[in-house]
Amino acid sequence: MKNQNPQVGIIMGSDSDLPIMLEAAKILDEFGIGYEIKVASAHRTPEYTAKFCKTAVKRGIKVIIAGAGGAAHLPGVAASMFPLPVIGVPIKTKTLEGMDSLLSIVQMPGGVPVATVAINNAKNAGLLAVQIIAAGDNAILNKMIKYKQKMENDAVAKNKNLKI
Amino acid sequence: MKNQNPQVGIIMGSDSDLPIMLEAAKILDEFGIGYEIKVASAHRTPEYTAKFCKTAVKRGIKVIIAGAGGAAHLPGVAASMFPLPVIGVPIKTKTLEGMDSLLSIVQMPGGVPVATVAINNAKNAGLLAVQIIAAGDNAILNKMIKYKQKMENDAVAKNKNLKI
Amino acid sequence: MKNQNPQVGIIMGSDSDLPIMLEAAKILDEFGIGYEIKVASAHRTPEYTAKFCKTAVKRGIKVIIAGAGGAAHLPGVAASMFPLPVIGVPIKTKTLEGMDSLLSIVQMPGGVPVATVAINNAKNAGLLAVQIIAAGDNAILNKMIKYKQKMENDAVAKNKNLKI
Amino acid sequence: MKNQNPQVGIIMGSDSDLPIMLEAAKILDEFGIGYEIKVASAHRTPEYTAKFCKTAVKRGIKVIIAGAGGAAHLPGVAASMFPLPVIGVPIKTKTLEGMDSLLSIVQMPGGVPVATVAINNAKNAGLLAVQIIAAGDNAILNKMIKYKQKMENDAVAKNKNLKI
Amino acid sequence: MKNQNPQVGIIMGSDSDLPIMLEAAKILDEFGIGYEIKVASAHRTPEYTAKFCKTAVKRGIKVIIAGAGGAAHLPGVAASMFPLPVIGVPIKTKTLEGMDSLLSIVQMPGGVPVATVAINNAKNAGLLAVQIIAAGDNAILNKMIKYKQKMENDAVAKNKNLKI
Amino acid sequence: MKNQNPQVGIIMGSDSDLPIMLEAAKILDEFGIGYEIKVASAHRTPEYTAKFCKTAVKRGIKVIIAGAGGAAHLPGVAASMFPLPVIGVPIKTKTLEGMDSLLSIVQMPGGVPVATVAINNAKNAGLLAVQIIAAGDNAILNKMIKYKQKMENDAVAKNKNLKI
Amino acid sequence: MKNQNPQVGIIMGSDSDLPIMLEAAKILDEFGIGYEIKVASAHRTPEYTAKFCKTAVKRGIKVIIAGAGGAAHLPGVAASMFPLPVIGVPIKTKTLEGMDSLLSIVQMPGGVPVATVAINNAKNAGLLAVQIIAAGDNAILNKMIKYKQKMENDAVAKNKNLKI
Amino acid sequence: MKNQNPQVGIIMGSDSDLPIMLEAAKILDEFGIGYEIKVASAHRTPEYTAKFCKTAVKRGIKVIIAGAGGAAHLPGVAASMFPLPVIGVPIKTKTLEGMDSLLSIVQMPGGVPVATVAINNAKNAGLLAVQIIAAGDNAILNKMIKYKQKMENDAVAKNKNLKI
Repeated sequence: MKNQNPQVGIIMGSDSDLPIMLEAAKILDEFGIGYEIKVASAHRTPEYTAKFCKTAVKRGIKVIIAGAGGAAHLPGVAASMFPLPVIGVPIKTKTLEGMDSLLSIVQMPGGVPVATVAINNAKNAGLLAVQIIAAGDNAILNKMIKYKQKMENDAVAKNKNLKI
Repeated sequence: MKNQNPQVGIIMGSDSDLPIMLEAAKILDEFGIGYEIKVASAHRTPEYTAKFCKTAVKRGIKVIIAGAGGAAHLPGVAASMFPLPVIGVPIKTKTLEGMDSLLSIVQMPGGVPVATVAINNAKNAGLLAVQIIAAGDNAILNKMIKYKQKMENDAVAKNKNLKI
Repeated sequence: MKNQNPQVGIIMGSDSDLPIMLEAAKILDEFGIGYEIKVASAHRTPEYTAKFCKTAVKRGIKVIIAGAGGAAHLPGVAASMFPLPVIGVPIKTKTLEGMDSLLSIVQMPGGVPVATVAINNAKNAGLLAVQIIAAGDNAILNKMIKYKQKMENDAVAKNKNLKI
Repeated sequence: MKNQNPQVGIIMGSDSDLPIMLEAAKILDEFGIGYEIKVASAHRTPEYTAKFCKTAVKRGIKVIIAGAGGAAHLPGVAASMFPLPVIGVPIKTKTLEGMDSLLSIVQMPGGVPVATVAINNAKNAGLLAVQIIAAGDNAILNKMIKYKQKMENDAVAKNKNLKI
Repeated sequence: MKNQNPQVGIIMGSDSDLPIMLEAAKILDEFGIGYEIKVASAHRTPEYTAKFCKTAVKRGIKVIIAGAGGAAHLPGVAASMFPLPVIGVPIKTKTLEGMDSLLSIVQMPGGVPVATVAINNAKNAGLLAVQIIAAGDNAILNKMIKYKQKMENDAVAKNKNLKI
Repeated sequence: MKNQNPQVGIIMGSDSDLPIMLEAAKILDEFGIGYEIKVASAHRTPEYTAKFCKTAVKRGIKVIIAGAGGAAHLPGVAASMFPLPVIGVPIKTKTLEGMDSLLSIVQMPGGVPVATVAINNAKNAGLLAVQIIAAGDNAILNKMIKYKQKMENDAVAKNKNLKI
Repeated sequence: MKNQNPQVGIIMGSDSDLPIMLEAAKILDEFGIGYEIKVASAHRTPEYTAKFCKTAVKRGIKVIIAGAGGAAHLPGVAASMFPLPVIGVPIKTKTLEGMDSLLSIVQMPGGVPVATVAINNAKNAGLLAVQIIAAGDNAILNKMIKYKQKMENDAVAKNKNLKI
Repeated sequence: MKNQNPQVGIIMGSDSDLPIMLEAAKILDEFGIGYEIKVASAHRTPEYTAKFCKTAVKRGIKVIIAGAGGAAHLPGVAASMFPLPVIGVPIKTKTLEGMDSLLSIVQMPGGVPVATVAINNAKNAGLLAVQIIAAGDNAILNKMIKYKQKMENDAVAKNKNLKI
């Protein structure tokens, strides 16, 4: 549902993060929720990023999902300029296993929260964005309830085929 | 706004976490959003916790804020039973500075996100809950925009009185 | 000895953990102790997991071995519902080397212990389960004494063939 | 129940660990289980420690609880010489918050498990020892089921007096 | 030399960081180098911070020293908008000892360096700013050579009064 | 621009670090800044290193870039003997992911700063050296302003070709 | 010089550590110092290890080098039973990069030191053993002085062939 | 035995480390071994330090004990200039609990070992120095054997007075 009545903005610090961040887009497609997706670096393209975040409410964006690695400032920078929820995805780095990304994203100061998910777990960022929209949209809430029920059924069913 | 048309459920693993978790309640009071607040341990009171989470949607709860320390399972357990956003507050521990709490909360598996904030930062959990409600409520969104503007003005004003 | 008079319940958060957890089963086979083995996630299948744990004493289970990775809540959740020993196996994760799994399992709050073994060391979880049963069963204790003696002999014998 | 038909041996690397380790003894007293309690260092008194561990089965000991800090070898050394369960309590250190103690105790090699509990949590070591004995003793199992039920009731009751 | 022909801009995320950051100012006073000093948060006052950094070259600023704690984005944000050196001072936090601040500041992506000094060591940030100016100013270089010589003499002299 | 009016001295603890450190040289080539490049170990060749650093000002060197891994003392040793800026590049190690290198370089005591960049990020060390020279050289400053502008344009342009 | 007038005892917890520990033997060969080399586990072969350590002085052993990984107790156990220097080599583990091995070896309690070298650096353990013997043997001291001189010359010479 | 036929050189990076480092001196006094004690910083007094280390063999020094904190280079710098054993004492720091000091000291590159003891454990550095001298001096070896025996007796005796 790319670029169709987007309710979610997905941004990432580098196009090398795209394969990971597409997991979030896949979830939004599954729930029929429109989104935008852009490369926007807090450090290399501060103007572009600021413009994206400051005009997002007007474009109808209700949640921003931001992925970044290392000194991962993108989610926090977005949160400083956007009044609705920002979800941060810490990207695993080559050197410190993503611990640097995680701490740079989660340890935000009082007044400017970032909703942080697990390292590299853009799928969960997508699901959290769906849940946020579901908080104000009963149709999406019902889809989420079914999604969770199906996930449970699938997991239980795995016990039938355990190779031991 | 305790117990008045609650839209947010605040739970914590131990009553010793109450002083920290009240920071979230204070923010909700400031925005005029109703909430419930309970001690509910994933480990000591699993039945009570399960009941609280499974019936929350029916009670009108849109977001659960869960604080816990050490092997901090409460936010994840809530997320397994509640289809709307769960915010996790890692409580600082006496031994490992809250690193154990943080990793136990943020590193959730695919399918079950927890929106994690900084260690001990229940204030930000409160603000994130407000933002989640604001995504579906323009009056709250406008309050949040004003809140952020006031925070900016107050911070800039501090430069007038710097003691150097 | 799968499913024969099971005294040990082996559960894991995901079927991808099966190759590691089978090391525990192998030890139980070696000692002739029956076991059950199931996929049961604290987050994806909370009902199934609760049922497994709450009825375990009635089925004759004396020890539960639970393996999980990341925000690894399964052992703690089992310990909240089962009155006999729960052994936790922290599974190594792709991002933080299993440090997240270890802290999520070992740092349990007062009242609800989990007997934690080394990261990925399901073999030791199996041996610990045997020792727990041996505490109330002299035949198993004698087998364990012989097992340790053989391990010592084998290790000393390695000095004969050191390639230097 | 000190020195009365002891079923549990409590040892610690230094007498400065005594206040922490007494939490384990208190639990055993509560369940009416006899125990021995000794200072026995893996490094300063290796002979004494070896003798304590090697003769423990003959004295009727079914579980050893060993507390140690820093390069915390006592639980592993006990496990090398005792064929029944050894529970390790990592003691918090002045320098690395007990992370050194935890890793020194939990990361045991294949063949020689130590059942590790949370840093400084000797209370949980006591409860785990009770659960191990309960696996072969229905009277103790019933006490443990009641203990857990009371803990749950007490925790739920705290909600009546929350000061908010 | 506050506000006199400033060559160095000192900024910090919160006025609570002022006592630490004044150590940098003290060094600049000692070398007779002018500076500005402001509270400017990457998260709470993004506009103010952007304006400060983008106009700094025109005001004659040659180096920016930025101190911040937790998810410490201020130095990186300054570096994205200022073409001359930015020095980052990781401020020690209440929870993770400043490890979060350090990683958030030092692990910058390719293209946007931040010259990071030790946790809380604003004195060294001041000295590094002096060295940067000294690279293009022989008078300051000579003062720095004397400063280092005096530091060496003072340290050696301490051996005369060692209380042993 | 190797060995042509060198303004930057690049040193590294081992010739195995050369591929990483050449990223700094490449940046200096791009800006037309001369440099020297040498293997000089704090531990294996202390005399050679001392001579290199103590005579550097006389040779016209304005910045030293030093890369080292493990107990990475080279940048600090250079900083003790050179009165102008020393930039430290922590080299990733085989065992601790470069955390040892980072802490050995960044945590310098008061009086002797090292300007530390990200692990393995010699490119940023090169850019920081350029910025330091630019603080006293307007031609280089203008090149740096253009460099940053081009980097921004290139990053924004990536959005045209995102494969989604 | 294996088994010829051995002055150094090399032990390791597992024969899988042999390739690493042989680096120590190679250094001893280079200096013409005799040594023994054995697999001796603190946990799997406590009796064999105790005998090796307690009788070592009588066999002429002046230094023990002990390598171990994970909960690495072998060096500390040797130090508890041997009155001359014990050198510990932390072996890198599959899960925690050898941080567990390092802390288990270096953080020994007061009274029982272990001379710890870098993770996997058995070569340095060999050199340290040579230096310990050199403290009482001028011929070995002179060889060590030459060894260090050659190392310095070789390292400086690498500058002639740097491929840039 | 300060300054009497010194066999051990004790150095430290700052006079604030003196109270900790005196624990090493106390042990040497107990064994009747002469020592020198000096403040000598790798960073603030490189010349003084180099002179101390290079002339130490001539002064009869057989072991250097070096204590330092943070980016703790003193032991490694001493080891680069002294052909006999160097013992490193990582001093606990205000920010990272001494983990920075430990890694800066222990992770030395191949060719230049530092015998590292536990954080702040100068007592063990003193004992290790005694053991090194004992390797070439039977009178000291006999004292060390007695010291260990007394330590064992004292520790066992503590069991008589355990307050339980």
